[in-house]
Amino acid sequence: MGEAPTTCVIGAGISGLTAGKALADAGVPYACFEESDRIGGNWAFGNPNGKSSAYRSLHIDTSKALLSFRDHPMPDDYPDFPHHTEIKRYLDSYAERFGLTERIHFENGVERAERLEGGGWRITTQDGEARLFDALVVANGHHWDPRMPDFPGTFEGEQLHSHHYVDPETPLDLRGRRILVVGIGNSASDIASELSQKTHRNEVTISTRSGAWIVPKYVFGMPVDRIARTLPYVPLSWQRRAVRHLPRLLSGRPERYGLPTPNHHFLEAHPTTSSELLLRLGSGDARAKPDVARLDGRRVEFVDGTSDEFDVIIHATGYAITFPFFDEAFLSAPDNRLPLYKRLFRPGIDDLVLIGFAQAVPTLFPFVETQSKIAAAYLGGTYRPPDEREMRRRLAADEARMNAHFVRSARHTQQVDFFTYDREAHRKELPEGRRRAAALGPVRLAGRAARHAAGAGAA
Amino acid sequence: MGEAPTTCVIGAGISGLTAGKALADAGVPYACFEESDRIGGNWAFGNPNGKSSAYRSLHIDTSKALLSFRDHPMPDDYPDFPHHTEIKRYLDSYAERFGLTERIHFENGVERAERLEGGGWRITTQDGEARLFDALVVANGHHWDPRMPDFPGTFEGEQLHSHHYVDPETPLDLRGRRILVVGIGNSASDIASELSQKTHRNEVTISTRSGAWIVPKYVFGMPVDRIARTLPYVPLSWQRRAVRHLPRLLSGRPERYGLPTPNHHFLEAHPTTSSELLLRLGSGDARAKPDVARLDGRRVEFVDGTSDEFDVIIHATGYAITFPFFDEAFLSAPDNRLPLYKRLFRPGIDDLVLIGFAQAVPTLFPFVETQSKIAAAYLGGTYRPPDEREMRRRLAADEARMNAHFVRSARHTQQVDFFTYDREAHRKELPEGRRRAAALGPVRLAGRAARHAAGAGAA
Repeated sequence: MGEAPTTCVIGAGISGLTAGKALADAGVPYACFEESDRIGGNWAFGNPNGKSSAYRSLHIDTSKALLSFRDHPMPDDYPDFPHHTEIKRYLDSYAERFGLTERIHFENGVERAERLEGGGWRITTQDGEARLFDALVVANGHHWDPRMPDFPGTFEGEQLHSHHYVDPETPLDLRGRRILVVGIGNSASDIASELSQKTHRNEVTISTRSGAWIVPKYVFGMPVDRIARTLPYVPLSWQRRAVRHLPRLLSGRPERYGLPTPNHHFLEAHPTTSSELLLRLGSGDARAKPDVARLDGRRVEFVDGTSDEFDVIIHATGYAITFPFFDEAFLSAPDNRLPLYKRLFRPGIDDLVLIGFAQAVPTLFPFVETQSKIAAAYLGGTYRPPDEREMRRRLAADEARMNAHFVRSARHTQQVDFFTYDREAHRKELPEGRRRAAALGPVRLAGRAARHAAGAGAA
Repeated sequence: MGEAPTTCVIGAGISGLTAGKALADAGVPYACFEESDRIGGNWAFGNPNGKSSAYRSLHIDTSKALLSFRDHPMPDDYPDFPHHTEIKRYLDSYAERFGLTERIHFENGVERAERLEGGGWRITTQDGEARLFDALVVANGHHWDPRMPDFPGTFEGEQLHSHHYVDPETPLDLRGRRILVVGIGNSASDIASELSQKTHRNEVTISTRSGAWIVPKYVFGMPVDRIARTLPYVPLSWQRRAVRHLPRLLSGRPERYGLPTPNHHFLEAHPTTSSELLLRLGSGDARAKPDVARLDGRRVEFVDGTSDEFDVIIHATGYAITFPFFDEAFLSAPDNRLPLYKRLFRPGIDDLVLIGFAQAVPTLFPFVETQSKIAAAYLGGTYRPPDEREMRRRLAADEARMNAHFVRSARHTQQVDFFTYDREAHRKELPEGRRRAAALGPVRLAGRAARHAAGAGAA
C-alpha cells in the first residue's frame, strides 16, 4: 500500500486494544474511538457504556496461561482463573505498557461508519465530528446486545437478560424467589450456581434446549483447558473423535444430573466450563428442565410436558452480533451469521477488517491478538490475502467444514478452535500472504488511491 | 442375659435412632431420652437443644448410596449429596417407619447417669425424675461441643466457632469483612467457600496447621466415595499405599493452591471433600495461610512470618467429645481420646455401650447402624465380646494400628474406616461373639443380676 492507510478502530475492548498494539507495531497510523471513559469493554465491570456483561462474581473460564496475550503475559501472582477485576487490571497494564491510551478518543464512540463511493470511510463520532479514514477496523465486540428467546405466551413475573445480572441483589432482589435460568452457557451456569446457593433461599431451575457438555475447571488438579493445547497437532475430525468422550469421562453423563442429552458432540459447540453447576444439580440445590414450550402467567411449561410456577426468568441466551454504526443493508449478521475470510475479511470490501467476531475456544484473548497481527500485516502491506474469488471459495469451504463440526444455533455461530486457527495463521496464512505480497505487491486500497490522487488526505 | 436388660438410650440423633431400632429388633426393652423436642440431633438444623452444628447450606459430604442405613434406603429422588433438610426428612421417615418416636421422651434429656455400686444405672432426667436401668447406651453425639484453639495473644475483632455459623448474615453480618477461617475440615472448607463468593464482598483467608487432602465430590461424574467401596477388600496398609496418590491425582498438589503440604498421607486423617474450596483458591477468591502463630489486636501472625488484619475469625476447629451426664472421673475423653473396644465397649464396664464415638470414613450413618446391631446383639444376649483381658489386649493393638495409620490430632482421634469396620463386624466380630455366647452363655450384667436377686425391677 506504499504509505500505510490511515485507520479507524472502533472500540477499546480486547479486540480494539490488540488491534491498536499490532497497528502501531506495523507502523499503521490509527485512531481508536471508544464510547466509554475507559478501556476494557466487556471486562470493565459496570462499564458506563452499558456494554459490559460482567457480573460481580465473574471469573474467566480459561486459565491464565492460555488467556495471556503473547506480547504481555499475565502476572505470576494471578490465580489460575482470574476475576474480572484482575482481567481489567491486566488490560490496563497492557494498554499502559504499549502506550495505547494516547490513541484512544474516549467518550467519543463511532455513531456512523459510511463507506465512501469506491472505498474509504467517513466516520461520524458522538461529538458530531466527521473524519475520513482509508481503512476501518471494527472491534466493537459481540457480547453486549442481549438476544431474548421468543417463547409463545406471556410471562407475568419479572424477566431479565443475563447481560443485566450483577449479583443476587442487583438489579433485582433475587432471594427467596422461584427462578428459571434459561440457557446453559457459562453465564447461565454461573448465575444458576450463584443463585442456587442455599444462602439465598431461592428455588432455581435451569432450562436448556440444546444441552451442553460441561467440563470442570480443574482436571487432575490442572486447569482443564491445558488439555486443549495439544489439539492443533491433531486433524479436526480426529480431535473431535478423540475428545468426544472426555466430558462424559470427567463429569459423567449429563442425564445423570437431569440435563438433556446434548444435541451435539463435545466441542461441536462452545463447552460450558463449570465446576459448580453439576455440584448444585447433584446436591439438589438446582434442578434441570428441558426447553421452554410456553409461558402462561407465572407458569412455565416445558417441552417434556411438566410445568412450574416462577417469579423470575433470567435469559442467559446469548448475544446478537450488531453493528449499530453500519447501514443494515451494508453489513449485518442476521441470526449471528457473519461469513468472513479468516474471520477477518469481507471479500469485496478491501478496506474493512473485523476483529473478534468469533466464538473462539477456549478464549477470545489470544485469538484477537492473532487476528490483530494479520490485520496489521494486511494494512501495513506485508500480508496480502488471496484474491476475492479465492477468498470466497475458501470461505465457503471453511463454513462447510465448520457447519459439519459445530452445532447450528445462533449462540454457536462462528465457532473457531483457537489453536487450530493460530497454527494455520502462523504456518500457512501469514507466510502465504507474505509471499503473495512480495510477488504481487500489497493490496492497493481503491478508495485511498483515488483520494490520494485527488489530493484528499486523511484526518 | 436371660430376660433382656432394661436399657436407657441417651439421645435421639442418628446413633440413638439406630440404637433404638436395633434394640427393638433384638427385643431389648428401652427408653430413649432426648433434650430436644425433635429427633435428628446434629441434622435438625436450628435444633432447639442448641446442639446442631448444621449451617444453612450444609450438604452431606457422602453420597446417598453410602449414606443410607441398610434397613432404610434413601429415596430414589434424593440428589447425590443431600441437603440437611433432606437428611432430616429421611431420619423422620426412618423413625416413623420403625415406630421409634413412641419410645423417645422428648424435652427430657439425661442430666445425670450414675453407675450403681456393682452395676446398673440411676438416670436423672430434666424433669427431675430418677429412673433405674440395667444398661446404658450413650448416643449423645460428638459434634456439638465446640473446641476452640488456644492461640497466644488476643484478637480484638469478632470470633465465632463454626458450630454457631448459620449463613453469611447469621449470627454475624459477614459481608464486606476480612475473614479468617481457621481449620480445613469440611466445615472450614464449606464456610470459606461460601463466604468467599464475590457476592458477599469479603476477603477470605483459610489457615490450616496440618493441611488436608482435598478430594472433589465428583470424580469422573461419579460421587468420589464410591471408590472407597472397594477398600475393605484390600489390607489397610496396602490401601494407604494404593490410594496415597489419589487426591494428588484428582486435585493436584495442595501446594499449588497455596495450602501447606499435609502432615500426613491421604486417609491417615479424615479427608476434606470439597469441590469448591480448590476452585475458590484457584480463582483467587480465597487464599491460604499456614497455622496461626499469634493474635495481636486485629492482626494475625502466621507461622510463615506473614501477618494480616482481620475483622472476624471463624474457628472451624472441631468438637470435643463430652459426656455432661457423667462424672468426669467416671468417663471422659481428654484430648478426645476415648479408647473403646470396637468403639463400643469400655472393658470392665459391662452395662455400658457407646455408639457413634468415631470419626468414621466416609460417614457415620451406616457405621452407627452397624455399631447399633452389635450393641443390640450384646444386650439381647446373642453376642458375647471377648473377656475383659482379651478386650484390653485387642483394644491396645487396635489403637497402635490406628495410630500408625492416622494422624495424631484432637480433630482426628478415633478415626475408623467404615468399610473395614463393617466387614470385620459381620465376618469376624459378630460370628465369633455368637459362638462365644453359644459356648459360654451371654454376659450376665452383674448389677442386674444382683438387683433381680433383690427383687428390684427396672423403671
